[in-house]
Amino acid sequence: MSTFVARKKTSPKRGKARTEAILDAAIELLAEVGYDRMSMDMVALRAKASKATIYRHWPDKTALVLAALRRRGGMVSDLPDTGSLRGDLELYARESAAAAAGVAGSLVVGLLAVASHDPELAAVLAQQFHYEQLPAITALVDRARGRGEVSPGVDHLLISEVLPGTLIMHLLVLGLPADEPFIHHLVDDVLMPLLIR
Amino acid sequence: MSTFVARKKTSPKRGKARTEAILDAAIELLAEVGYDRMSMDMVALRAKASKATIYRHWPDKTALVLAALRRRGGMVSDLPDTGSLRGDLELYARESAAAAAGVAGSLVVGLLAVASHDPELAAVLAQQFHYEQLPAITALVDRARGRGEVSPGVDHLLISEVLPGTLIMHLLVLGLPADEPFIHHLVDDVLMPLLIR
Repeated sequence: MSTFVARKKTSPKRGKARTEAILDAAIELLAEVGYDRMSMDMVALRAKASKATIYRHWPDKTALVLAALRRRGGMVSDLPDTGSLRGDLELYARESAAAAAGVAGSLVVGLLAVASHDPELAAVLAQQFHYEQLPAITALVDRARGRGEVSPGVDHLLISEVLPGTLIMHLLVLGLPADEPFIHHLVDDVLMPLLIR
Repeated sequence: MSTFVARKKTSPKRGKARTEAILDAAIELLAEVGYDRMSMDMVALRAKASKATIYRHWPDKTALVLAALRRRGGMVSDLPDTGSLRGDLELYARESAAAAAGVAGSLVVGLLAVASHDPELAAVLAQQFHYEQLPAITALVDRARGRGEVSPGVDHLLISEVLPGTLIMHLLVLGLPADEPFIHHLVDDVLMPLLIR
């Protein structure tokens, strides 16, 4: 009953604040207890929202987690034209590193650990961390082709495998920071040689 | 008391069989329940060994897990000379992929998930998956230098970051197989261009 009354009174602005509180709660709980132990009840309690409100926006836990990850980064959906391939790659590497650090390593590997037993979550993560980034990478390489910067015949999707993989290794396996020297190393010693032969 | 009697009667051969049963049990339990839920009691029960026997060989769970991982792969400690850089890299990529598939993706990411909250385990994994492989990679690149195959000034430790990272992305994030076409792709389109400019 209280839920129903609250819903009737919700302005668009208050609705947005509530949505954000739910996504914040989901991210916090993912980091604290992990995906498999997190429940919709816990999210509702933390966000001071009703479960009905949560289910009205997201049909299940996977959908809620995906929305929370989207909002909190881990996505590089738009890569502006900096005027050069090196500049574009630097921006891409820097944003990817910030996103990976932003969603917190423990969160990402915690989700991957569950995903290895959960094909639905695995598909969501592959979508999130790989397939949704491909259009931006294709556009980046197309711009470089237009400038004559990329060798013909290069498989440009390479960088969509090598960049996140090397970041995962550096940040999550070795526990090293993705600082500016590392970003330049990634761009100059890894990505540029793959694209320019 | 029974432990003591069993120890006195143990031949070297039986001792080895028992050690292997304990490591097998540890690997099985890691995959089934994960590192944080696995206990020494569970390992003892599964291996039909006493906890005293286990603690005689490994002082704690981290040491046992590291020994189990070492035995079950995930290590590329010796890379024979195939006569060419491409051949050496192919062997390295193929063995790394087999090792990563062998210890099972769920195991590796499960451990990484715990490691993100456990600096001691994190250090063990970084050691296992990175630092212990460096001498073999250095030797591989030194051989290539001797043959005049590698460009001067190349940071050869690059491949120790890029190869495992790209494998983690391919196998564990995207859930794709590390089959022969992928191995050739890794060698010809990623590793060779990084070393030969």
